[in-house]
Amino acid sequence: MIGVVRGVYERYGFEPLETPAFENIDTLLGKYGEEGNKLIFKILKRGEHEGSGEADLALRYDLTVPLARVIAQYQNELPKFFKRYQIQPVWRADRPARGRFREFYQCDIDAIGSGSPLVEAELISAVCEVMTRLGFQGFSLRLNHRLVLHGLLNIAGVPGPQHNEALVALDKLDKVGVDGVAREFESRGIDAAVTKRCLEAFESGGSEAPEDTLRRLETMFPPTDPALANLRAIVSLAATTAPAGHIRIDLSLARGLSYYTGAIMEVAVPDLAGSLGGGGRYDNLIGMFLGRDVPACGFSLGLERIIVVMTERKMFPDSVEHGAVDVMVTLWNDESLSDALALAADLRRAGLRVEVYPEADKLGKQFKYASGRKVPCVAIVGDEERSRSEVTIKDLRSGTQQSVSRTDAAAYLEEIVKHQ
Amino acid sequence: MIGVVRGVYERYGFEPLETPAFENIDTLLGKYGEEGNKLIFKILKRGEHEGSGEADLALRYDLTVPLARVIAQYQNELPKFFKRYQIQPVWRADRPARGRFREFYQCDIDAIGSGSPLVEAELISAVCEVMTRLGFQGFSLRLNHRLVLHGLLNIAGVPGPQHNEALVALDKLDKVGVDGVAREFESRGIDAAVTKRCLEAFESGGSEAPEDTLRRLETMFPPTDPALANLRAIVSLAATTAPAGHIRIDLSLARGLSYYTGAIMEVAVPDLAGSLGGGGRYDNLIGMFLGRDVPACGFSLGLERIIVVMTERKMFPDSVEHGAVDVMVTLWNDESLSDALALAADLRRAGLRVEVYPEADKLGKQFKYASGRKVPCVAIVGDEERSRSEVTIKDLRSGTQQSVSRTDAAAYLEEIVKHQ
Repeated sequence: MIGVVRGVYERYGFEPLETPAFENIDTLLGKYGEEGNKLIFKILKRGEHEGSGEADLALRYDLTVPLARVIAQYQNELPKFFKRYQIQPVWRADRPARGRFREFYQCDIDAIGSGSPLVEAELISAVCEVMTRLGFQGFSLRLNHRLVLHGLLNIAGVPGPQHNEALVALDKLDKVGVDGVAREFESRGIDAAVTKRCLEAFESGGSEAPEDTLRRLETMFPPTDPALANLRAIVSLAATTAPAGHIRIDLSLARGLSYYTGAIMEVAVPDLAGSLGGGGRYDNLIGMFLGRDVPACGFSLGLERIIVVMTERKMFPDSVEHGAVDVMVTLWNDESLSDALALAADLRRAGLRVEVYPEADKLGKQFKYASGRKVPCVAIVGDEERSRSEVTIKDLRSGTQQSVSRTDAAAYLEEIVKHQ
Repeated sequence: MIGVVRGVYERYGFEPLETPAFENIDTLLGKYGEEGNKLIFKILKRGEHEGSGEADLALRYDLTVPLARVIAQYQNELPKFFKRYQIQPVWRADRPARGRFREFYQCDIDAIGSGSPLVEAELISAVCEVMTRLGFQGFSLRLNHRLVLHGLLNIAGVPGPQHNEALVALDKLDKVGVDGVAREFESRGIDAAVTKRCLEAFESGGSEAPEDTLRRLETMFPPTDPALANLRAIVSLAATTAPAGHIRIDLSLARGLSYYTGAIMEVAVPDLAGSLGGGGRYDNLIGMFLGRDVPACGFSLGLERIIVVMTERKMFPDSVEHGAVDVMVTLWNDESLSDALALAADLRRAGLRVEVYPEADKLGKQFKYASGRKVPCVAIVGDEERSRSEVTIKDLRSGTQQSVSRTDAAAYLEEIVKHQ
């Protein structure tokens, strides 16, 4: 899976980056909204300071904030447009559940340095190509825009200082439903009439085509609204390539993280609540480290969540189920140890994955062990074989057995292993 | 590099395993000798317990102890002989230095379930093959045996309870020299005459062939000593394959970790103090978790230390220096955005790594950016090209320029990129 993801990301011109597992704690604190701070794993100071009970380092919570730190730190060594991919684990002190772990891999792409809608279109396109290559068909790419959301909140009459609270509440729409969000609004002191207007405006229209949503929005916004124009540009660029048919504008999509400033997006499938990944534009985050803003946009796929869905749908090819060994060399007796090693060396030179049974057990026991490990073939060099410079190959799948000359053994095995 | 290591490990029949970055703190504490406990990164309890300043989790310090925990936990699901490889980072709160980092990758192979000397021979062989495939020639595989060491300490007259202290002191021989070790022995209360005999016995004989060291040992040990017989069996089995010519028995090799019970080994090159990796047999470690002992043996290569040496020796092939992008599609003007994306999609479909310049800058500026990023080719679709359904390809390495039909562009670029 990582190979598929990496392959697509590289064809889109992203280059690899890894960052350390932990950052200075101040780099991470305050970047992940209300809940985030509590879910960060914190590392105790070391040596004489260990007793203080204080933490100075913290484990990566996502791959975006560490990237922003890297951009700020190495600004003079990086190209004007920097496109990096990063496939590494992150850690969150969350309650584990189906497809949700305390350690999980994120597969991120980010494009730094340009505010062009082409950036969003390329990110969406790469993600949709990953999904397609993994074998997904009925997935949707949910798209929204933070500035359009603020526009809608203004239209509904939500006062500016309450926008962020309203977005946090709105983000739970697919979990708690319209009534749940209404209660959240109420508990946050938002006027009931405003709440009603707000929820109407945010109705996503279900399976409505993006063009219809855009038209509906255009009746509500001033004709030259830049946020809406940006959203339209992203949709029309993305629709020409891999994402065609997968994009939905979902006005209820808010995304919890507080650092987004423009387009926000998620990829989702019907049979898993929540998303398989998401991202958005965050033009101010790097500025928190650098002191001046740098336009940036990214998308993150959650590896384990995708694995959960693919496993349940039986989407993995059979070859993934195969064992780790092509051939097991049996051990005839203690005197034949170095013969067995020499044969193994020959077979490995031909690229075969070879295990040598480490002890001179009964042959039947050795065969049984090989079967249990799903090894397709065993090689036997007994006294008779040795005297004739031969190897006996048994195919454990068919039960057939064949003696071949020692020099032909590698080629013979390569051939039958390839056809498993 | 990881690809080379993984390839060799898989041909030797090891299967992949990953373990979580952190373990329960009790799993790690007390497994790494005198110094280890202090160097473990400890994670603060979370939620209401955060204020207690206590730690309940700790970051992986090596890959061996987590493996032992896994073996104990999943004993009924694992084969009788379990051979796994693991390539993951570990963390040590060490003072960083050349080739020594607080986060670094270990590339481990371990074989669980057999005490046969074939296990050690296969591990040594795999490691030597990795080294050879990475391009190393003058490396040495230093081999010793914990039980032979204890035998030598007995012969020298070091009292049993002082053996471990003596080994910790002896382990520093290549750093502090004979006089330094003598002072260490003295400070640990070992008799001066004993120290002298001990240091004589441990003299490794420099570049002595393993057979000569074995013969020298055989004059000192009883004829049926099982430790010495085991060491001889390992040497004679390993010498038949990849390690031939690289093995040296180094009697001063002690290895700091307290869990070794048999053969111990290190791989080293002349131009880096310390080792590029090491390992040994640890037949009791799994028993600490499982309650009954299981024979086990492993070897760990340090990725970054190898990278340091390979970089300094300029051993990496030129291709490693190439950029992350094969072709940059230029942007003619804002109206040609979707044309550029469509061309990029075609080229990516052919497997090329393609970047689209995100903004309609001057063409010269776009070329300069591509040069700076070491992109070999740029593709231009200007108004003229579009009217003729052509693409102009400029090879930035040679400066030559060629117009090709839109449908041939991918094949043409594949050809010239391949020959970079």
